[in-house]
Amino acid sequence: MSSGVAKPGLRERTRRAVHREIAEAGMELFLEQGFEETTIDQIAEAAGISRRSFFRYFATKEDVVLGGLIDRGHRVRSALIARPPEEAPWAAVRAALLALREEPGAGSETELRIGRMLFEAPSLRTRHLEKHLAWQEMLVPELSRRLRTTTNLDGPSADHRATAIIATALTCLDVATETWVHRDGDVPLEDLWDEAVTAVRA
Amino acid sequence: MSSGVAKPGLRERTRRAVHREIAEAGMELFLEQGFEETTIDQIAEAAGISRRSFFRYFATKEDVVLGGLIDRGHRVRSALIARPPEEAPWAAVRAALLALREEPGAGSETELRIGRMLFEAPSLRTRHLEKHLAWQEMLVPELSRRLRTTTNLDGPSADHRATAIIATALTCLDVATETWVHRDGDVPLEDLWDEAVTAVRA
Repeated sequence: MSSGVAKPGLRERTRRAVHREIAEAGMELFLEQGFEETTIDQIAEAAGISRRSFFRYFATKEDVVLGGLIDRGHRVRSALIARPPEEAPWAAVRAALLALREEPGAGSETELRIGRMLFEAPSLRTRHLEKHLAWQEMLVPELSRRLRTTTNLDGPSADHRATAIIATALTCLDVATETWVHRDGDVPLEDLWDEAVTAVRA
Repeated sequence: MSSGVAKPGLRERTRRAVHREIAEAGMELFLEQGFEETTIDQIAEAAGISRRSFFRYFATKEDVVLGGLIDRGHRVRSALIARPPEEAPWAAVRAALLALREEPGAGSETELRIGRMLFEAPSLRTRHLEKHLAWQEMLVPELSRRLRTTTNLDGPSADHRATAIIATALTCLDVATETWVHRDGDVPLEDLWDEAVTAVRA
């Protein structure tokens, strides 16, 4: 019985290790020779697996780049939940997003190169917009809950307002990332996000 | 010489008429039997043209629904250009977007059904997000120009701020449209847009 419980744990750990290896091999190839120019066969070969195995881990080449975004979304959500309940919506959302900037690799040359790739390949750009919708769905319920406790809003209004704030915060992140890439990272990404939000709220 | 000039005019008028006929036939089928359930062959048959001719007018089935969005974007841009130069950015953008609400069909049951379709078919949703990027590119230069004349901002800062405002305005339009569809149009779309923008700027 206990080995029956332990086994999926090991299997899951193995699965994650292979997943990470494929993502790393893919990212290395993308940054070296370009996203469009890299084939799934090349990624599979570099990771030492078959093309068929590749598709057990990733549905598309775009997911090799963007797969980690869902995990990042979960971390933003946890950071938002951890904010003081009486904090104003924008302050809480800002602090939650800033948690990502404290992770290793934030602001690095590699992050800049990944960002550049994101805005150059149209299929990646589109997939990136779709992932933003996934973040939105993760974050809105938490912000809506906060709006309902701190104000007299009814459920539908709180949902609508929370969606507007979260969607705008993510849109500003997208705008800031694009400007950051265009300016070759000469200003910190977080400053560009603040400037975008200030412009919107002025 | 003069007939040489007139000829493309006639050809272009014919092209537009066929384009409109295909779009109308397609929309009728989509609303009747659903977007995913309708095939390109069915649209071609309803419009009395061949499948091959269809592709001379539309690259994808999604474009039959969203083709008009580019024209609408041009109309928003014209409305923005026509606003008084000293008007505050948000007031000008709001007035430009409201111009669309004065067009025939705005707020109609058909518009609501098209909106419902948009949020139900994932491929349409994605293509819709891409079209928003096209609107953004049309509107940002005009707003950036206004920001530069009314403030002391340099070019890159004005572009960044104008992008943040336009992208947020379009994001709020998307959020408002989704809420409007969910609530079956019980509140005017423009009121939901105002509520979204107020929540963001509060």
